[in-house]
Amino acid sequence: MTEIIRPTLVIDKEVCLRNIEKMAQKAKDFNLRFRPHFKTHQSAVIGDWFRMYGVEAITVSSIQMAEYFTQNGWDDITVAFSVNILEINNIKRLAANINLNVLVENKEAATVLSNQISQPLGVYIKIDTGTNRTGIDASKIRLIDTILDILSTNKKITFKGFLSHNGETYSARSTNEIFSRHFDALLKLKSLKQRYKTQFPNVEVSIGDTPSCSICNNFDGVDEIRPGNFVFYDLMQQNLDVCGFDDIAARMTCPVVAKHPSRNEVVIYGGAIHLSKDSLPNIDGKHFFGRIAININGEKKLLNKRNYVTRLSQEHGVLKVSQKNFGLFNIGDLVEIIPIHSCLTANLARKYLTTDGEEIAMINS
Amino acid sequence: MTEIIRPTLVIDKEVCLRNIEKMAQKAKDFNLRFRPHFKTHQSAVIGDWFRMYGVEAITVSSIQMAEYFTQNGWDDITVAFSVNILEINNIKRLAANINLNVLVENKEAATVLSNQISQPLGVYIKIDTGTNRTGIDASKIRLIDTILDILSTNKKITFKGFLSHNGETYSARSTNEIFSRHFDALLKLKSLKQRYKTQFPNVEVSIGDTPSCSICNNFDGVDEIRPGNFVFYDLMQQNLDVCGFDDIAARMTCPVVAKHPSRNEVVIYGGAIHLSKDSLPNIDGKHFFGRIAININGEKKLLNKRNYVTRLSQEHGVLKVSQKNFGLFNIGDLVEIIPIHSCLTANLARKYLTTDGEEIAMINS
Repeated sequence: MTEIIRPTLVIDKEVCLRNIEKMAQKAKDFNLRFRPHFKTHQSAVIGDWFRMYGVEAITVSSIQMAEYFTQNGWDDITVAFSVNILEINNIKRLAANINLNVLVENKEAATVLSNQISQPLGVYIKIDTGTNRTGIDASKIRLIDTILDILSTNKKITFKGFLSHNGETYSARSTNEIFSRHFDALLKLKSLKQRYKTQFPNVEVSIGDTPSCSICNNFDGVDEIRPGNFVFYDLMQQNLDVCGFDDIAARMTCPVVAKHPSRNEVVIYGGAIHLSKDSLPNIDGKHFFGRIAININGEKKLLNKRNYVTRLSQEHGVLKVSQKNFGLFNIGDLVEIIPIHSCLTANLARKYLTTDGEEIAMINS
Repeated sequence: MTEIIRPTLVIDKEVCLRNIEKMAQKAKDFNLRFRPHFKTHQSAVIGDWFRMYGVEAITVSSIQMAEYFTQNGWDDITVAFSVNILEINNIKRLAANINLNVLVENKEAATVLSNQISQPLGVYIKIDTGTNRTGIDASKIRLIDTILDILSTNKKITFKGFLSHNGETYSARSTNEIFSRHFDALLKLKSLKQRYKTQFPNVEVSIGDTPSCSICNNFDGVDEIRPGNFVFYDLMQQNLDVCGFDDIAARMTCPVVAKHPSRNEVVIYGGAIHLSKDSLPNIDGKHFFGRIAININGEKKLLNKRNYVTRLSQEHGVLKVSQKNFGLFNIGDLVEIIPIHSCLTANLARKYLTTDGEEIAMINS
């Protein structure tokens, strides 16, 4: 790693491949279509790693990402973001080139699609299973029917089914809470499937969150899973007991630039523009922005929770380090920061470096 | 603005130029060298706007930024970040091409520079005036002397003076607190200047924060100011009474994709990867991620504090909107989000669009 001279997002390919294989196998075991979300890594190269495990259909979170992965050989893409009607021309172009699915949750978007789509397009209705971000409450049958009526006037549009992102599992305080929130979501989606399966025999249910897909074993009525974060995992997932430290594939490697013994603080070159400002509550109740791993005579060691990233400015990160460990940090050392939220950290990186020294480009490269 | 179809950082050039002119004039009035920090805009084009007001020397926060602005015709650059010794070869290359200044705060970095620098290099000693991020406490004369001794062994190195970033003004609870923290910093830096001016007749004092540079009128003993954020300003500065809303030049324009009347929430295409996750406490005590301006029959209107960005995920922003205003939002509308921290928001943008429709590239374009 001696060629690293500035903050660099390092990916352990072996761990990535293990995470992908595990999720792909789980999808097979439960007879689910595995349509991984590529918004976490945003990289054509890492995308190709998924092909080794039979992945042919993917999820993205923006039209630009769909365009990028289309250019990189993917032809079955769901844009898991409620349709932005201002991008209708981009949607039409994509629909002409690949099997494209979009999400609808209101009459306005349904009307624009119904009026303007001239190439085959798949549409999922976005269902809110409790996250209160986007989607239609599963009980709002009349709105769902109205949207289906609007869409049905355009024969190029195929209603695919109901899609949800069960985001509230991210705020669960225990794995039991993940199980129960996942189960609640399944009940809502299953009842919708029941209700519409005579009218739409092929109606599907698609769910997406990494916590449920990682640890739940009940996918009753589910046809497709779309997890994304699992490719790297992060401290947020580890904190939910959804993964272990050894499953976290992404680390921000940063140079040490200053030491302040009077306050047991170490300053690294690595700030908010490298790690992002997502945080977790620490043992002391304060929020922290990452945990620290260092090399101790050749051995990589994860330091305990009393050692953490305590403050971030644009390019600086301030590490609070225990008295015992302070002496282990030297100016010019490289330390590894385990990110709180790998999706935002990866988005800030222009590229990846693997632990084997391979440089990997991404959409922003 | 109808050509905007996805989250776009829109810059009001007129406001930018006014902000630049005002700060340049203030520097003239107080006989200070104006060395603006370019880490906020990171754009060669916006950099050129500063030349109109006589700016010839700049500040950046990374070696990469120094390399970018060197390629764009700047030849007098201070890298206001404690030297990262792993980048010593890049520093040597830059020093061979431009007038380069770096910051030192420890013996290790001083020793590396002293041993390896073979081209003229300016060095400031980074002083901590109370921010507790980086820098040497102004009272630690022995450490300062040791570093000066180490640097003096290399004749290519010129000790320029003492540099501080008075970051604690950003957490002030009143303008009076900004004045007093600024005054404290001046006292510390002035005493250092006094102490060393016989040994170093040209010893300088350089300060940098936007709050003091914007509102303070005492620059006793100061030779140079390095504000950066003022070019755009943002809600953080407006919240400190350092600028008014009309001085904020950057707005993230975002499409409306969903409306949820049951909770008076509007969902925009515009999330953490567009705005960044910096926040401020709102009137209700909760944190918010931006304020909202909309067009009401052709007139741009800033909505009051009961309308704000309440949650951010990767691509989604959720707006909490008052009952009264909810009807003003329609699917497909463009709304403007005033950023909390324009430095982080700009860093996430790949480019800018001016209100005149001009596309402006930046370092990441």
